[in-house]
Amino acid sequence: MKKILIVGGVAGGASAAARLRRLNEEDKIIMFEKGPHVSFSNCSLPYHVGGLIPNEETLLLMNPEKFLKQFNVDARVNSEVVAIDRENKEVVVVSEGREYRESYDKLILSMGAKPIVPPIKGIEKVNVFTVRNVVDISKIHNFLNGKPNAKVSVIGGGFIGIEMAENLKKVGYDVTIIEALPQIMKPFDYDMVQILHREIMDNGVNLIVNDKVDSFDTNTVILASGKKIEADAVILAIGVAPETDIAVKAGIELGKTKAIKVDSTYRTNDKDIYAVGDAIEVYSPLFNDYYRLPLAGPAQKQARAVADHINGRTVDNRGFISSSVIKVFGYNGASTGLSEGFIKAMNLNIDYDTVEIIPFDGVSIMPNARLMHFKLIYEVPTGKILGAQAIGKGNVDKRIDVIATIIKFGGTIDDLKDLELCYAPSFGTAKDVVNFAGYVASNLRNGDYKQVHYSQVRELVEKDAYFLDVRMPEDFAVGHLEKAVNIPLGALRSRYNEIPKDRTVYITCKTGLTSYTACKILQNIGFNNVVNVSGGFIGLSQYEYFNDKSTGRKPILTGYFG
Amino acid sequence: MKKILIVGGVAGGASAAARLRRLNEEDKIIMFEKGPHVSFSNCSLPYHVGGLIPNEETLLLMNPEKFLKQFNVDARVNSEVVAIDRENKEVVVVSEGREYRESYDKLILSMGAKPIVPPIKGIEKVNVFTVRNVVDISKIHNFLNGKPNAKVSVIGGGFIGIEMAENLKKVGYDVTIIEALPQIMKPFDYDMVQILHREIMDNGVNLIVNDKVDSFDTNTVILASGKKIEADAVILAIGVAPETDIAVKAGIELGKTKAIKVDSTYRTNDKDIYAVGDAIEVYSPLFNDYYRLPLAGPAQKQARAVADHINGRTVDNRGFISSSVIKVFGYNGASTGLSEGFIKAMNLNIDYDTVEIIPFDGVSIMPNARLMHFKLIYEVPTGKILGAQAIGKGNVDKRIDVIATIIKFGGTIDDLKDLELCYAPSFGTAKDVVNFAGYVASNLRNGDYKQVHYSQVRELVEKDAYFLDVRMPEDFAVGHLEKAVNIPLGALRSRYNEIPKDRTVYITCKTGLTSYTACKILQNIGFNNVVNVSGGFIGLSQYEYFNDKSTGRKPILTGYFG
Repeated sequence: MKKILIVGGVAGGASAAARLRRLNEEDKIIMFEKGPHVSFSNCSLPYHVGGLIPNEETLLLMNPEKFLKQFNVDARVNSEVVAIDRENKEVVVVSEGREYRESYDKLILSMGAKPIVPPIKGIEKVNVFTVRNVVDISKIHNFLNGKPNAKVSVIGGGFIGIEMAENLKKVGYDVTIIEALPQIMKPFDYDMVQILHREIMDNGVNLIVNDKVDSFDTNTVILASGKKIEADAVILAIGVAPETDIAVKAGIELGKTKAIKVDSTYRTNDKDIYAVGDAIEVYSPLFNDYYRLPLAGPAQKQARAVADHINGRTVDNRGFISSSVIKVFGYNGASTGLSEGFIKAMNLNIDYDTVEIIPFDGVSIMPNARLMHFKLIYEVPTGKILGAQAIGKGNVDKRIDVIATIIKFGGTIDDLKDLELCYAPSFGTAKDVVNFAGYVASNLRNGDYKQVHYSQVRELVEKDAYFLDVRMPEDFAVGHLEKAVNIPLGALRSRYNEIPKDRTVYITCKTGLTSYTACKILQNIGFNNVVNVSGGFIGLSQYEYFNDKSTGRKPILTGYFG
Repeated sequence: MKKILIVGGVAGGASAAARLRRLNEEDKIIMFEKGPHVSFSNCSLPYHVGGLIPNEETLLLMNPEKFLKQFNVDARVNSEVVAIDRENKEVVVVSEGREYRESYDKLILSMGAKPIVPPIKGIEKVNVFTVRNVVDISKIHNFLNGKPNAKVSVIGGGFIGIEMAENLKKVGYDVTIIEALPQIMKPFDYDMVQILHREIMDNGVNLIVNDKVDSFDTNTVILASGKKIEADAVILAIGVAPETDIAVKAGIELGKTKAIKVDSTYRTNDKDIYAVGDAIEVYSPLFNDYYRLPLAGPAQKQARAVADHINGRTVDNRGFISSSVIKVFGYNGASTGLSEGFIKAMNLNIDYDTVEIIPFDGVSIMPNARLMHFKLIYEVPTGKILGAQAIGKGNVDKRIDVIATIIKFGGTIDDLKDLELCYAPSFGTAKDVVNFAGYVASNLRNGDYKQVHYSQVRELVEKDAYFLDVRMPEDFAVGHLEKAVNIPLGALRSRYNEIPKDRTVYITCKTGLTSYTACKILQNIGFNNVVNVSGGFIGLSQYEYFNDKSTGRKPILTGYFG
């Protein structure tokens, strides 16, 4: 019989408790939770505010009574572990003013991470909320209830910030998102995330990027730019910091990211103390270093591994690549592995190229088919897949899950081409989005054609580059690069003499597919310098729209898609 | 300059033509199509009858004019290639009564497969239709138009048969499906497909399995059982046979499956003649033998490979594992790799085990979360994944695509556990369906518990086995195994004395998860012979329902789920 204590009763802690009991009926298992609830769905919190989960109680998946009855686990809520006495193998618990000690054979730390609340000037002059647990979300819900026209500022454009903003907007509040960086949602690259920027703007949320909170005044957010935003409520969602206080005080080592350092079996520097979840740092097999990954899936996996290890089982730790998905009004966005932005920001020593395509996610003639923006990042020259991002109105998560699976096996663009995925007209296309990305990447590798990304077009326009648009005139009329020349693909073989041979010809169409065919025609005819504009008019539209509209700069397009 | 002829202008042929042109502007490319249309979406044909694609013209993705303008491909419709003269490297074409010859450097055969029409007695007494192309589907559409109460019999429960039946039912016809085998949709195992049987029955289609068409009388189908089904129209969808006539006459070798034999570059025994699509046989890396795989995705992939090979590029042929998906009224069903039924039917020398789980496909408290039936087939003792099937109202294709990807890499149940898939409450669960399947398989491998499948329960009931149901009494009351004893999980530790220690205890719950916990409790208490009933009450309900209702046999359940 072992006595196992668990600090923290949400994702990691609750998973560890259940698995520990399944593996051993004898052990004494006690789980301490600082707050009043155990095992709630923290990822679902924003949907309570939005009304999708109307009752607060629904968020609570378990309670101490159920833990006792079903798992014979002693779950103690309102019980904060304030210290670890490693020498005596005891923890110090404070509960309802009372302090006591509990001994352990094994200790599992699953304290999670806490919302960062910086000491911004005047913070006492606004109603500030954070979103970590059911109590937090109830506070927001109760505060806003009965204030149908309340103005809410969400500070921070990460998962929680965006999900909160959407849910608050859906029930009618006047919502502003303030993001200090030039973009929200860092798992997405700047070129991809513009679609989400547009969607948020088009849904009536006031999205401010590239501007920082300077200070607060009475019910007002004051930005570094001088802008003032009225706010009955302010939701701080700028990020989370691992809860490490008791660990640090007890001499548990932190890693370079200031999260708890663990070995491959999730043991800390104390062989009887394990740690899991948002409080630890994990290893990336893609860039061979440690990072923080506050996601529920990895926490549960780590918890299971710890329970296994405590019961003498082998643990298989292959590191974490990070996969995630978010719904942003009508769009879904998913990502896995490395982004281009991350590779650059971290100065990773990786040669890579990217493919950006916008194919239909189903057979184009079926009424539910929608365009999907898909970006693939792969190593050069090996073709090894490093990451991918997909944004669209359909099942982007399906494509990213496939890429996440490929990455786990170290797969390449050739593997992508070879995949056999499910196809029926209601579900996808015979050549799926991911196969297509593999084909395009392989064409690029073979030197079949050259490409320029839609994010580079504005600069080319300013340099007065020559653009050829090969769409039909009626499509061209809807919107195009202001200076583009229009020769439809079907007329190219008879009209190619109109195209200058001494200039680089940048070819564009709707999404980059027809222009690829045009590139091949001109190349085969003898043009030496033709370049495909990846993503075409739709890519350009989505990339330019938000910045055009929000900054009032001069557009390079005569109109936008959609 | 090469002259390349293509026989057949649908999936394989049209893909080959486009790729050939992209790789080479000089080559002369001629594509012959027997029918009046090229490059139509044959997989979408049933949805024209169902009204989802209202206009016939919409089905036509391309036409000869577009092929000429965009690809400089000479697409000749109503042009049947009736012979191949290999010695002179010419084909004989018949078009509008005229016969002519066309020479080739390279010839690509993409004739597809034709619906099997057996010489059933009295076939001239019914209005028989098949579904291969736009002309066929128009005939059906026009025949039924203006006959709102028409009775339609669909013979054959494969993809086309089921999709046709659903679409016909949706627009109001009185539909019967007749399947000679005990089940429809062979990619699914008998235990899984019962869900689809029920769904078809519950949607008012008369589904007859295990009964053969004996003969036809005037507007009547007569079955081997003696049953007579009135039918204004009969749709024959019993299967397809590869179109090989001209190949055989020209001495092109067929394989053991009577489809055209090709090498790894899709060349036939004539080095200048390639073949792709439904007319060929493909290799399975899972059972190391050849088989027929009439699917659009593989056809397109083969076509691309042939165009590459003709242009001197390397071709990467890793064989085909077969992935597919179908919508059946409210359910989606997807499968990949080997099924249990296939392994048995082919007497494959493979040791395997299966896992059947019914988890939620999203966070259970979210309104869009639905149960998914998932079956995993893996090799013993290696744990190598061989196949999977998923049926549910949500995104089953996502999970099967992940498994299809894993299979391509020879992945195991340990790889399944390790996958990091996208998670947010609207999209899935932190521990995804496929992770969960990996965990269950790994618990079984470790000997953590024993299981029996819901398909084996009826036999156990007849043998008077002891069943323990650990759901709450209110859930038990809705429906349960008639003889099961009910002790809720939470009471198990205090009431285990009521359970016989000298008998095998088969434990059941809602889906098999709570009963797994119960197994662990009883095992740890000292019960040596406890067995989990995989799938639980829901699995049993879905498995028993259709046969109970359609045969009138005595149910083993007091009520059904759903």
